[in-house]
Amino acid sequence: MAKIVECVPNFSEGRNQEKIEAIVGEVRKSAGVTLLDYSSDKDHNRSVVTFIGEPQAVLEAAFRLASKAAELINMEEHHGEHPRMGATDVIPFIPVQEMEMSECVALAEQLGEKMGTDLGIPVYLYESAARSQQRRNLADVRRGQYEGFKEKIKDPEWVPDFGPATLHPTAGATAVGAREYLIAYNINLDTANLDIANQIARRVREKGGGLANVKAMGVFLEDRNIAQVSMNLVNYKKTPIYRVFEMVKMEARRYGVNALGSEVIGLVPVDALIESAEYYLQIEDFNKDSQILEKIL
Amino acid sequence: MAKIVECVPNFSEGRNQEKIEAIVGEVRKSAGVTLLDYSSDKDHNRSVVTFIGEPQAVLEAAFRLASKAAELINMEEHHGEHPRMGATDVIPFIPVQEMEMSECVALAEQLGEKMGTDLGIPVYLYESAARSQQRRNLADVRRGQYEGFKEKIKDPEWVPDFGPATLHPTAGATAVGAREYLIAYNINLDTANLDIANQIARRVREKGGGLANVKAMGVFLEDRNIAQVSMNLVNYKKTPIYRVFEMVKMEARRYGVNALGSEVIGLVPVDALIESAEYYLQIEDFNKDSQILEKIL
Repeated sequence: MAKIVECVPNFSEGRNQEKIEAIVGEVRKSAGVTLLDYSSDKDHNRSVVTFIGEPQAVLEAAFRLASKAAELINMEEHHGEHPRMGATDVIPFIPVQEMEMSECVALAEQLGEKMGTDLGIPVYLYESAARSQQRRNLADVRRGQYEGFKEKIKDPEWVPDFGPATLHPTAGATAVGAREYLIAYNINLDTANLDIANQIARRVREKGGGLANVKAMGVFLEDRNIAQVSMNLVNYKKTPIYRVFEMVKMEARRYGVNALGSEVIGLVPVDALIESAEYYLQIEDFNKDSQILEKIL
Repeated sequence: MAKIVECVPNFSEGRNQEKIEAIVGEVRKSAGVTLLDYSSDKDHNRSVVTFIGEPQAVLEAAFRLASKAAELINMEEHHGEHPRMGATDVIPFIPVQEMEMSECVALAEQLGEKMGTDLGIPVYLYESAARSQQRRNLADVRRGQYEGFKEKIKDPEWVPDFGPATLHPTAGATAVGAREYLIAYNINLDTANLDIANQIARRVREKGGGLANVKAMGVFLEDRNIAQVSMNLVNYKKTPIYRVFEMVKMEARRYGVNALGSEVIGLVPVDALIESAEYYLQIEDFNKDSQILEKIL
């Protein structure tokens, strides 16, 4: 099986369709990568691109995207609701198949060095690629945003990991990192009470003292007249889906509320589902790598 | 993704290592197929071979195996505990990836015709490849065994589907068919009482009025001092693993017995586990073909 990595760059243009297409086009025309999805938000004035492929092809496509964004976006004129620090704001690499996290960290380092040297853009390594604890969290790295970075970059604590120690005059700075695959997972409740969904979400998520690697909020689904606990599972390997499902049902009991069902939004790595099947079927000594027929083909 | 088919021929030699290796060797040296497993049973005087590959390569390898078995095995001298009717006793084709059952039926027909014409061996199509209801069940086709077939083959009801209307003088006859992937699945009980495992097995299996496509028996595991319900799931698409697991737990309750865990023996198609994850996580509207990351690569 080939090594496959996913890359999800966010760039700071969500309104000008011509520029968006030109930037995404760099991925489209890169050999050996597959564009899975892209979407733009006008309020955020920002776009998110998802593509996959073998490591070097993905690295090359990410660099081309960042070059084109630096060429077309002027951060001096950028306004939008979402926090941002550069033309290409953030570029994470995610292991998908036959890839270790350390290999994604190496990709982040290669890309960071190339962006620093060839494009003159200061780069900060974040999450699994971070070289210090205070750079792990993207929100900490980005604090102050583009405008604040003109000063922040002079602070000895915030010297970039690659590139010049001054902000690029139009492209700003970029965070490049490595992280686990994110699963968007929602649980539908048999109540129309959004407040209950919010209460459950607060107790289930990491920052409320619930499960690590879980972000959650309540959402009301108008068309079905039910409330939902909407979640991001940011490390399904450490915090598997079944644990999240059981935890939500457990917290819902306080209100006499049950799970109607759940939803997996978009793509999910097959191992995340196998892990849950193993749990519920109580399968002993199962080897995911050698006992799945399709994996040994 | 490539079309992948599995083939599991059973041949009537389980004692003479030299002959076994020569017959299995025909698969080993066939281009484009992968030998997954083979095992011989001395009491049964019979061997089972498992290999996979693209359809035409698998067809060719199966024919070569059958030719070599016809060359080396003399059914006039064969004795063993397992019922059998030919040198190569049975050859099933099983869809694994991107294959419809109808394509496996077509492979069975191609192989049957070639064995009939080139090797002079009468061939009966069985299970999904059967052309009449009475030939679906392998046990019905094989009834009378090699010795009885000298007469049975003259019965107008048992004219072979391919090949001569007389038994091959040394290789007998062969059943060639198409069937679903078989999952060997066991559930361990928190009791050492084999009788309880047998009672549960009888109620859970198809012929005892339990679940269709399930064969089951009780087994005692000496090293762990526990009883087990040992099963073959012969159509996991129609009768999924979770239903079998829940049914065994339900029947076990009569005895105050619980499931300690379960075991998947050997290989399992990934969809069989995804199906169980979907059930237990109550995932709504999940699309196994478009939402599994690895499947769209």
